[in-house]
Amino acid sequence: MRVLGLDPGLQRTGWGVIEAQGSRLKGIACGTVTSDPKAALSDRLAQLYEGLQKVLDTYQPDCAAVEETFVNTNAASTLKLGQARAVSLLVPARAGLAVAEYAAKSVKKSVVGAGAADKEQVMFVVGKLLPGLVLPGADAADALAVAICHAHHAQTAQRMGGIDLALLARSR
Amino acid sequence: MRVLGLDPGLQRTGWGVIEAQGSRLKGIACGTVTSDPKAALSDRLAQLYEGLQKVLDTYQPDCAAVEETFVNTNAASTLKLGQARAVSLLVPARAGLAVAEYAAKSVKKSVVGAGAADKEQVMFVVGKLLPGLVLPGADAADALAVAICHAHHAQTAQRMGGIDLALLARSR
Repeated sequence: MRVLGLDPGLQRTGWGVIEAQGSRLKGIACGTVTSDPKAALSDRLAQLYEGLQKVLDTYQPDCAAVEETFVNTNAASTLKLGQARAVSLLVPARAGLAVAEYAAKSVKKSVVGAGAADKEQVMFVVGKLLPGLVLPGADAADALAVAICHAHHAQTAQRMGGIDLALLARSR
Repeated sequence: MRVLGLDPGLQRTGWGVIEAQGSRLKGIACGTVTSDPKAALSDRLAQLYEGLQKVLDTYQPDCAAVEETFVNTNAASTLKLGQARAVSLLVPARAGLAVAEYAAKSVKKSVVGAGAADKEQVMFVVGKLLPGLVLPGADAADALAVAICHAHHAQTAQRMGGIDLALLARSR
């Protein structure tokens, strides 16, 4: 199963692709898709869309997982994040992929073992789990962490009775 | 100039297309695009996307205008609205159209003459301005109001020195 993980942001959306076979994980590629801060909002969203579409076309994942947005107290930045997040949900959904969502805490817990782990810890552990990949930054590492979290959940679900998480998400 | 107006919402996004020639306005079509509340968020956004894409393909507008989201105090609903709004910005932007944004207050002021006008008033005035159209509801009327507001702004800009608002937005 090839999983695309996404860590949405308007300025920078992190992405990471892993191959999961049972408990074996392999890093395929990762990076960030950016938008021009000087462009109109609509064009920025279109830039993120085209960038993620290229990632999908190149790496052909079977399913996707998106980090659930941290809802903070500033309404303007929550709105911005929501808009960027919509792009991360839309691109794989329009390609017919099931898109799972995981809270940032669950991702950290699943990968590092602690829900309150910091960015450095996440990068460190992701680097250990996927030794073949060069991590360009925290956004890409976070995206890979979401993909790893989804692979863990899929594996557990399969062990518990052959349920395929991708199908499960699709049938909702 | 054919203007597509959009009033974004996750459950229901209103749309309206008008033809503006100088100060003369003509209603072309309007309606709502809906998403299935029982579907996954990613699929709901994809449903809105496909729906708006059909509107664009059918009515071939020259530019688009989107109502600026009311940022309320509930972070979860702000996030939802942000996600729905991203779709309204994305579909025309990906088609190469300039997308203008107007605050709800400016729209009401421009169409009804009062920034605090209620939904019934907006429907009433939009119905008077575009007598040929049957308004299916408040969302479609709001979308037409945004389109009318954009047409007014474009006309004023042109009068003040031949500036085409669509080009202006695109060159940012």
